[in-house]
Amino acid sequence: MDEKAATILVVDDEEDIREVLKDRLEFSSYRVLTASNGVEGLARIRVERPDVVLLDLQMPVLDGLGMLQGIAAGQLETCVIIMTAHGTIQRAVQAMKGGATDFLLKPIDPEDVERVIRRALEQARLRRENLRLQQALREAQDQLLLEMQRELRIAHEMQMGLMPQESPTIAGFEIAGMCVPANEVGGDYFNYVWLDEGRTRLAFLVADVSGKGMAAATVTMRFNEVLRYEVQGRSAPQDILRGLDAALRGRIGELTFVTGCIGALDVAKRVVRIASAAHPMAYHYTAKDGLVRQVAPSGLPMGMTLPPGVGGDYPEVEALMEAGDLLVIYSDGIPEAQDAKGAFYEDARVAEVIRGRAGQASAQTLMDHLLRDVDEFRGEIPQLDDMTVVVVKCLE
Amino acid sequence: MDEKAATILVVDDEEDIREVLKDRLEFSSYRVLTASNGVEGLARIRVERPDVVLLDLQMPVLDGLGMLQGIAAGQLETCVIIMTAHGTIQRAVQAMKGGATDFLLKPIDPEDVERVIRRALEQARLRRENLRLQQALREAQDQLLLEMQRELRIAHEMQMGLMPQESPTIAGFEIAGMCVPANEVGGDYFNYVWLDEGRTRLAFLVADVSGKGMAAATVTMRFNEVLRYEVQGRSAPQDILRGLDAALRGRIGELTFVTGCIGALDVAKRVVRIASAAHPMAYHYTAKDGLVRQVAPSGLPMGMTLPPGVGGDYPEVEALMEAGDLLVIYSDGIPEAQDAKGAFYEDARVAEVIRGRAGQASAQTLMDHLLRDVDEFRGEIPQLDDMTVVVVKCLE
Repeated sequence: MDEKAATILVVDDEEDIREVLKDRLEFSSYRVLTASNGVEGLARIRVERPDVVLLDLQMPVLDGLGMLQGIAAGQLETCVIIMTAHGTIQRAVQAMKGGATDFLLKPIDPEDVERVIRRALEQARLRRENLRLQQALREAQDQLLLEMQRELRIAHEMQMGLMPQESPTIAGFEIAGMCVPANEVGGDYFNYVWLDEGRTRLAFLVADVSGKGMAAATVTMRFNEVLRYEVQGRSAPQDILRGLDAALRGRIGELTFVTGCIGALDVAKRVVRIASAAHPMAYHYTAKDGLVRQVAPSGLPMGMTLPPGVGGDYPEVEALMEAGDLLVIYSDGIPEAQDAKGAFYEDARVAEVIRGRAGQASAQTLMDHLLRDVDEFRGEIPQLDDMTVVVVKCLE
Repeated sequence: MDEKAATILVVDDEEDIREVLKDRLEFSSYRVLTASNGVEGLARIRVERPDVVLLDLQMPVLDGLGMLQGIAAGQLETCVIIMTAHGTIQRAVQAMKGGATDFLLKPIDPEDVERVIRRALEQARLRRENLRLQQALREAQDQLLLEMQRELRIAHEMQMGLMPQESPTIAGFEIAGMCVPANEVGGDYFNYVWLDEGRTRLAFLVADVSGKGMAAATVTMRFNEVLRYEVQGRSAPQDILRGLDAALRGRIGELTFVTGCIGALDVAKRVVRIASAAHPMAYHYTAKDGLVRQVAPSGLPMGMTLPPGVGGDYPEVEALMEAGDLLVIYSDGIPEAQDAKGAFYEDARVAEVIRGRAGQASAQTLMDHLLRDVDEFRGEIPQLDDMTVVVVKCLE
C-alpha cells in the first residue's frame, strides 16, 4: 500500500485541532476524515475503515477510552494514536492496554504526528502481511488435508464397493453380511459367489488381510479379483482356499497373509461345507437343541511364505442346515474388541448373542444386533479393528 | 498453577524498596527474588523464570527500558510491571510499547501491587493456556496430516510394487520400462508376462486407467490381478485384450475404462504382434531406413459399458524386429505434457527423440532420455499426468 494514500481519521471535539491536523495531513497527501466524538468516530471507522485514527481522550458523548473499547469490541482493524492535553501516566497506560498504538501529547508537533503516523502505518502493514501469510499457510495446509482426505475417502469407497451391496436371494434361506472398517480402509473382506450357472451352490467368504489401513486394503482389492478367478470350476471350499493360497504366495509381501473362512451351501441338500485358513470364527446354531458349535476346521493362512510342501491343506467339515439353523462367520475384530477396562468381547459372547437371538431374529437383525452389541460393549473406546459378519439362516 | 506459589522478581536499585516489597509479598506467600539492576535482573530471569517482574525504570548499569529490551530480545516468558517515581507519559508509553504488562507509580501502595500482580498472573495464565491449546491443535493437525501422508505413501508403494522392478532377460533383445506417477498414486500401469513356460514369447503391456489418483490406482491394482489370469492359455494380444475387456466390463464403474497396448514378442521369430485398446502410442523404429512408424491398430477401450455386440474387437499388426530396431509403447502423459506456454510435447517429438537416439542408445538410455526430455520440456510446470514407457530393442 502506498503510505501517502492512507486514510486518517481525526477524532477531536475541538474544531480548530481537527482543521489544523486535516490541513497538515492533506498537504502531505493523506486522505483525512474527521469526527467530533467517539460515537461519530466509531461510525466513520465502520464505514471508511481508516488506516490510522488520531484520537482525543477527553470528548463529550463518548470519550477516547470508550471509543477504544468500541474498536476492540467491534474487532475493527485500525491503528489508534491517542492525543491528549490532559495526560496522566495512568490514562496513558490505560490507553495502551486498551489497544492504542501510540500516544501524543498536545499541543501536537506537526513533525511528530507525521512520524508517529508513518510508524503506525508500517507496523500495520507488517501485521497485515503477517496475518496474510499465516492465513495462506493455513489455507494451503487445509487444502492439502482436504485433498488427502478425499483420496483416502475414495480408497474407502472403492474397497467397500467391491463387497456385496445386497444379499443374494436363496430359496429357503436368508443371508446377510456386512463389513465395518475401523479406519477409512482396512483388511477385512467378505463376498458371496455362486459356484454354478444354475445357482444351486453359493459360496460365502469372510477374509482378513494381515496388517491395517492402506497396506491391507490394497491386498483386499487384489484378493477380490483373485477370488473371482480361483472359484472358477471349483465347488469345494478346500479347493478354493488351496487355489487362493497358491495364487497369493510370493505376491502379497513376505510378512503379509490372508486368513479366511469359506462356506459352500448346497441349496437343495441344505448342507454347508466349511473350510478355514486360520480363521476359526464360524458358528453353527442348531435350532432343534438350541446349541452353538464352532464349525471351522484348522488350516494355515493363505499367501504365507512357507517351506515347500507345507500348508495348502484345508480340511472340510459339513453342517446340515435345518429350519431355524444359523451359520455365522465373522472376523477377529469382533471377539478382540476391547472395553474401557481392557476386557475382550470374546467368542463366547458371540455364541451367547447367537443363542439368545436365534429364535426370533432374521439373518439381518441378528447381524445388526451382534454389531450393535459390540459397539455397546466397547462404549467410549474407539473401534481398533475391522469387523465383518456373514449370517446364513435356514428358513424352512 | 496456584497463584500464591508464583515467583516474583523485584528489580530495583534501592535496597529499602526491594526489602519492603519482598517482605510484603513473602507474607502473601509469593516466592520473591531480588536484583539491583537490569543486568542482574536478566540473569535471574534466565535462571529462575519468574512469573512476574516488578521493574524500576531508573537504575544504574542497565535501566528498566534496557532490561525490557533484553527480555524481548531473549524471548523470555514473563510479565513485567513497571514501577517508577520519575514518571512521564512518554516513558510510560515507551515501557508499554516495550512489552510491559502494567505500570505502577511510586511510592507504591501495597494493596495496589498485589492487585496488579494477581491481574498479571491471570493474564499470563490465559496466554499460556491459549498457546497450549493452539499448539495442541497444531500438533493434532500435523499428526493427522502425517498419518494420511503415510497411508497415501503406502498406497503408492503398493501400486509401484506391482510393476516390474527389473526387466526380463531375452536373448538378442533389451527391454526397459518405467512408470512415473504424477501424484502419489495414479492410473498408469505396465508389465511383462511370459506367455509360455519355455519363455519363447513375452508380452509387454502399457495400460492407463481413466481418471486420476486413488480412484484410478485401485483399478490398476485390481487390473494387475485380472491380467495375470487373462493371459493364461493365451498368446495373441487380441485375445488377451478381449479377455481383459470382458473381465472388466461392469466391474470398474460405469464411467471408468482402461486403455492399453500389448505387444507379444516371439523371441525366435523376432516378430512382435501388437493390439491396442484405444491406446495408439506405439512406435516401431526400423534401423535399416531410420524411419519411425506408428504401429498400434485401433480398438475400443477395455471395460467400457457398451451395447451388446459392440467392442471387444482388437485387430493386430505385426512388426518384424531386426538388428537396431526399437519398439516403444508409452502413455498419454508424455505427448500431453505441457510447457509454461501451454504447448503440448506431442507424439511427433517422441518420434523425433526415438529417431535421434536410436543409433547409440540402449533400451534403458533411450527411455531415460525420453523421460528427461519431457521433464525439460515441461520446465517449471508440474507433471499433471502419469508417464509410462516400455522400450524393446533388437540387438542382433
